[in-house]
Amino acid sequence: MHYQFANRMNHLEGSALRENAKKNMEAKDVISFAYGYPSIDAFPMDTLRTISERMYTEFDPETFLQYGPSEGLPELRKLVKKRIEEQAAIDSDDEVMIVSGSTQAMDLVIKVLCNEGDIVLCEEQTFSGAVNAIKSYGAIPVAVPMNVSEECLDLGALEEILANDSQHRIKLLYLIPTFQNPLGTSIPLEKRKEIYALAKKYGILIFEDDPYGDLLYFGDPIPKMKSFDTDELVIYAGSFSKILAPSTRLGFVMAPQPIFEKLVLAKQVSDSHTNFYWQVLLTEFMENYHFETHVNYLKELYREKLTVMLAELAKLPSEAIRYIEPTGGYFICCELSDEVDEEAFLDYLFDHKVIVIPGNVMSVAGKGYEKFFRMNFTKPSVEEIQLGIQQMNEAIEYARKAQISKAI
Amino acid sequence: MHYQFANRMNHLEGSALRENAKKNMEAKDVISFAYGYPSIDAFPMDTLRTISERMYTEFDPETFLQYGPSEGLPELRKLVKKRIEEQAAIDSDDEVMIVSGSTQAMDLVIKVLCNEGDIVLCEEQTFSGAVNAIKSYGAIPVAVPMNVSEECLDLGALEEILANDSQHRIKLLYLIPTFQNPLGTSIPLEKRKEIYALAKKYGILIFEDDPYGDLLYFGDPIPKMKSFDTDELVIYAGSFSKILAPSTRLGFVMAPQPIFEKLVLAKQVSDSHTNFYWQVLLTEFMENYHFETHVNYLKELYREKLTVMLAELAKLPSEAIRYIEPTGGYFICCELSDEVDEEAFLDYLFDHKVIVIPGNVMSVAGKGYEKFFRMNFTKPSVEEIQLGIQQMNEAIEYARKAQISKAI
Repeated sequence: MHYQFANRMNHLEGSALRENAKKNMEAKDVISFAYGYPSIDAFPMDTLRTISERMYTEFDPETFLQYGPSEGLPELRKLVKKRIEEQAAIDSDDEVMIVSGSTQAMDLVIKVLCNEGDIVLCEEQTFSGAVNAIKSYGAIPVAVPMNVSEECLDLGALEEILANDSQHRIKLLYLIPTFQNPLGTSIPLEKRKEIYALAKKYGILIFEDDPYGDLLYFGDPIPKMKSFDTDELVIYAGSFSKILAPSTRLGFVMAPQPIFEKLVLAKQVSDSHTNFYWQVLLTEFMENYHFETHVNYLKELYREKLTVMLAELAKLPSEAIRYIEPTGGYFICCELSDEVDEEAFLDYLFDHKVIVIPGNVMSVAGKGYEKFFRMNFTKPSVEEIQLGIQQMNEAIEYARKAQISKAI
Repeated sequence: MHYQFANRMNHLEGSALRENAKKNMEAKDVISFAYGYPSIDAFPMDTLRTISERMYTEFDPETFLQYGPSEGLPELRKLVKKRIEEQAAIDSDDEVMIVSGSTQAMDLVIKVLCNEGDIVLCEEQTFSGAVNAIKSYGAIPVAVPMNVSEECLDLGALEEILANDSQHRIKLLYLIPTFQNPLGTSIPLEKRKEIYALAKKYGILIFEDDPYGDLLYFGDPIPKMKSFDTDELVIYAGSFSKILAPSTRLGFVMAPQPIFEKLVLAKQVSDSHTNFYWQVLLTEFMENYHFETHVNYLKELYREKLTVMLAELAKLPSEAIRYIEPTGGYFICCELSDEVDEEAFLDYLFDHKVIVIPGNVMSVAGKGYEKFFRMNFTKPSVEEIQLGIQQMNEAIEYARKAQISKAI
């Protein structure tokens, strides 16, 4: 039989690179800076075990094994709201829904807001999962040029794009303002306010994706865009993948009431609700088992890894490679100078079993970021970070020579 | 701000009834036959506790707390395939993907196959979640008339609809062939084959939704449609909600290869993957803890409840109420005769705190099934079943008088 698929699926392609790199990552002796995975030391096994044991012996099974409301466990929704008020200064009347990771938040938001052919503006380099979610509904991701050294979108370019949207096809601006993926950068407060003002002026919504927001290692936090959302323009999504465990698929989304109601309907249709074993377990964790102490432990753990990575990177020739030092999150993004042949550089690393993500993979257009590559510092051990970056010194040497041979 | 939603969301409405009835169900002294929930005695607490304890102490945390493949845990996918081969005689080359309940299977299938305006054929009375999934992508659910006493679609009507589809807008036939929801009926083998032949003749796909398929209480199983799918026309979905626990959101979908590949992409975008704690736990359960013994225990438990419900129903006046005796599953569907005023009947039950689902709620058109109501027999206790059905005797008496007053 000849199968016909929905048009929206024509825009969606699998990531062969993801699968290949995954295989490489799992091979022996490989040092992987590729994926946004937490450290193996990040899982609070004793606490999980204790709460789980209590659940199976002391709790009513129906609270965590039966069907439940699509919006999530009421107690957890309250705790999440309280937590983002305390930790992120987001004091909003909007309701919170528990979803299966912030990935699902994005999926549901696009489903609710975008018709086929509608446009979602994105940072030029961004989370490929979000780009695929947009495409999967037949909407179109359009890259806004970035000013990487200013850690922000090019605001002039953004306004030009918005001003030229005479048909009102732009429905949403997708941003990771804090510890951006892949750049590791954070949009400064002033720029956040300018972006918000533009969204207000042109009547578009903002999706503030904040899966790394809890993981601040240096300096002061920058206010979330949701914290100054006076005009109900910001949909805010967070995740417990990075501060509890990815497999749990626990995330949340907060949105102005009319949007929230549609999101609940879409969630109901999508998978009824998110796993309640984990909703109950997290509720217990947050209420009675010092959840913030655990988050602080993670910050210590990753602060050290980031510090080591930055120290090692500082030993590389500054005329060959540059990067913006992140103050939190999961990633550092590096840019090779023109004197370094990027293919030779990546080949050398790959041959020496060091895996990074090439910049184009994380770019909306899939091109133009040949000179960039992303590195994760939370998953590898301190020793792997040292060894891996030391290999980069050799790789730069090798790739400089390759560049010279090319030029001759 | 005035929010604009995607067109597809205009077709989707919340189920106020569901929420109201839920509240009533949770109130004290209420006897609920309303929802498709497992019994509180259905959860294998000791086994879950034992495996969970082993996971937190003996297993590598990365196997159940880290990110994993979108298709699901390879070992579980193999076990599920082996299980449906052994238990349901489905011997297919198609791959299995683990999804978040068979609800998600339906959501992904519609996403992959249907453009806005495409048609999905459904049984006239069917699972409202599936109808909502269809609407949520802007596709149109179209009811095929049923011949309830033959436990099947009206095949003449089905062929007429298929033959008249000159624009090829019909993409899928959605069926619950075994222990149908809400009817409790099962399509006989001969009719299944005739439906398959029609699908083949007109080149449409079949979605065989089988969440209750394991729960056979009387007689012999009827071969699944997937078991004779020689032409790659059948997408088959199953669930562990009814035989493990609903909250786990564990289901699976099996589809011909080209469709399967698209489903994996859609799953990746939707929520990355299904919770691995539960995938690992179920794998252990199926491999080492006598999973089929547990399923057999459930069949005993529910066989008794169904037997009691049928015995109580047999005491009601047969000229006032009729029903088809199900051989498995979760539901009995009753039809009131013309001499019983259905509103008075439901009002009486409601006033006496007995909750059932009115037929129109489970019908595609939302009308025409005033005389029907659905009852679940797995969740209530034996005593509740006895008391609840005894109330129906009074309700029929009351509603007969109401019908007479109306007629005068």
